Amino acid sequence: RSMATTARRSLRIGLVPADGIGREVIPAAKKALEAVGSDIPKLEFHDLLAGFELFTRTGTALPDETIRILREESDCALFGAVSSPSRKVAGYSSPIVALRKELDLYANIRPVKSVGANPGGKPVDLVVVRENTECLYVKQETIVPSETGREARATRLITERASRRIGKMAFEIALQRARKQVTIIHKSNVLSVTDGLFRETIRAVPRLPEVGGKYDNVRLEEQIVDSAVYRLFREPEIYDVMVAPNLYGDILSDAAAALVGSLGLVPSINAGEHFVMGEPVHGSAPDIEGKGIANPLAAIRSAALMLRHLGYQKGGDRIDAAVNQVIEEGEVLTPDLGGRSSTDEVVEAVLKKI
Amino acid sequence: RSMATTARRSLRIGLVPADGIGREVIPAAKKALEAVGSDIPKLEFHDLLAGFELFTRTGTALPDETIRILREESDCALFGAVSSPSRKVAGYSSPIVALRKELDLYANIRPVKSVGANPGGKPVDLVVVRENTECLYVKQETIVPSETGREARATRLITERASRRIGKMAFEIALQRARKQVTIIHKSNVLSVTDGLFRETIRAVPRLPEVGGKYDNVRLEEQIVDSAVYRLFREPEIYDVMVAPNLYGDILSDAAAALVGSLGLVPSINAGEHFVMGEPVHGSAPDIEGKGIANPLAAIRSAALMLRHLGYQKGGDRIDAAVNQVIEEGEVLTPDLGGRSSTDEVVEAVLKKI
Ligand SMILES: CC(C)[C@H](C(=O)O)[C@@H](O)C(=O)O
Ligand SMILES: CC(C)[C@H](C(=O)O)[C@@H](O)C(=O)O
Repeated sequence: RSMATTARRSLRIGLVPADGIGREVIPAAKKALEAVGSDIPKLEFHDLLAGFELFTRTGTALPDETIRILREESDCALFGAVSSPSRKVAGYSSPIVALRKELDLYANIRPVKSVGANPGGKPVDLVVVRENTECLYVKQETIVPSETGREARATRLITERASRRIGKMAFEIALQRARKQVTIIHKSNVLSVTDGLFRETIRAVPRLPEVGGKYDNVRLEEQIVDSAVYRLFREPEIYDVMVAPNLYGDILSDAAAALVGSLGLVPSINAGEHFVMGEPVHGSAPDIEGKGIANPLAAIRSAALMLRHLGYQKGGDRIDAAVNQVIEEGEVLTPDLGGRSSTDEVVEAVLKKI
Repeated sequence: RSMATTARRSLRIGLVPADGIGREVIPAAKKALEAVGSDIPKLEFHDLLAGFELFTRTGTALPDETIRILREESDCALFGAVSSPSRKVAGYSSPIVALRKELDLYANIRPVKSVGANPGGKPVDLVVVRENTECLYVKQETIVPSETGREARATRLITERASRRIGKMAFEIALQRARKQVTIIHKSNVLSVTDGLFRETIRAVPRLPEVGGKYDNVRLEEQIVDSAVYRLFREPEIYDVMVAPNLYGDILSDAAAALVGSLGLVPSINAGEHFVMGEPVHGSAPDIEGKGIANPLAAIRSAALMLRHLGYQKGGDRIDAAVNQVIEEGEVLTPDLGGRSSTDEVVEAVLKKI
């Protein structure tokens, strides 16, 4: 799961806060990274632009310069959140979806784990492994007039190649976990061809010659997406690693976040062969933007997840341990978790414990 | 919302138990209908075949004769549940999806309401109004070889016509409820064309000339599907009527069912201009098939919903009141609700109260 660590002199991190509370939580994650000190290389940061707000000012949601610096001068990145226009805006397209594709960050890895006694109910400890480049996110859409009104069509693309690589990633992650179970999420009772291919390709992963039997001890399960969401709420303990096409993964990770009390706790990384980008699962939260009360923990955890993916296990673990302590003590929490503290106060509390 | 009731001498009901526990709960719903007696017309039943089990025996999942009798000799129907093959089976296609299309049952109406103190948490009282004929359910899929492996594509169809009629249905239902609120569920931040059309068409419904301002007091909200699922779990009280494209509606209704304690409680109707078919939201439940412990309440409630849709308000209400009493008393419940009673015992308890 982690990218080969050739000893690095320095770690170059692109910071893309983008919109809304992204601008409040990315600086928090930066501070957490800086606090780690000796367990990771010297850090270099690039401040980069993207987002809907940028688009409304400049006509560009994702400047070429941002992509270039990420590609050529960064080892990894942290992305904040993007606002969605409340109506279709000509020429605007989500920069996060574009970045995932541009950098071929094919796996969106979203661990959801409750800390201590879960206020949301039963303990939860699962990872959503979401395919991140295709499904309905290829955004091939058309619209034509007809006698009865307009007709719009979107293409849902599922390839064997992308299904296989996300399947391998899911098995790889399962191998590192205690339960060692992969559940394929699909809707092949309706989408027998596309989801049929997804499911069949992933089922075949353990028998691939290049895998050489290393997943033989991973249990393989499957669930139809609608009943997967139902069971997620009633029996979250049945899941370990859930691997899903893009859109189901999008929905499932929000659903799982509800179980641990707040989207403000759930981190993710967008991972490719050569690049990794941390990103909190929450959105830009226009309702609380600028109030200084955004929960920084999802972004901080995303930084930790990114470090571990790069091979800096110890650095990542130190950040996570600090975050978990702050949650368990329950004294310095933002309002989404029932607390009264500000973003800054939570960051301070975490930094003290790193 | 209800179909014009021209005084009927008799009500002709097609019964399609199909697979698994469908065969246990449809007879239960039939008994409940028979118990209503004087508030509805004389009942005539047609026993009809469909399902995956039928397919494995005869090569046909949905016989022409079933469709013909529903079309020509029935006023309405009750459908049980279908099993999904665990692998793609050549020539098999889901009969429920086919029936919805064949009979143009364009609205799948799924009320989810907790009774008494909700064991699942906060009280829930919402209706999922799911478009029932298009989206990815058009099942237009292709698969082609490529240099890097097979590539499969599915078409997601969203038309103005279908979006408008499901939108009208949602407003019509909202008008009859206390809260009078419609929330459009979409993902137009990614699917700006297809979901853009869905959203825009429904937003325009209150201003249609033929509507004549009758929805002016209905509040219109919207939510992106992923955060809609998140908020559904955390704040179910924010929803009244949720209107969604087919697949989101499928997932949302299972998610909402989790909030009221069991899929075994949630009814639905598939409604068209000229026909209505009740259908419990649960599946064929192969794990408990034949054990006599399937929860019959979703099927019984589906029969009540169907009666009300046909204009037999009083008959429907009597069934629902009986079901609610049985749930509130909590003494005769199937295992999915934490009880120890059999299907038959629950049916008996309901019949006594009708
Ligand atoms: C903002 C949106 C395009 C994005 C997605 O759908 O992937 C978000 O919901 C996410 O989960 O990262
Ligand atoms: C069985 C399946 C085809 C069906 C659907 O996806 O519509 C079911 O999940 C439902 O909700 O009625």
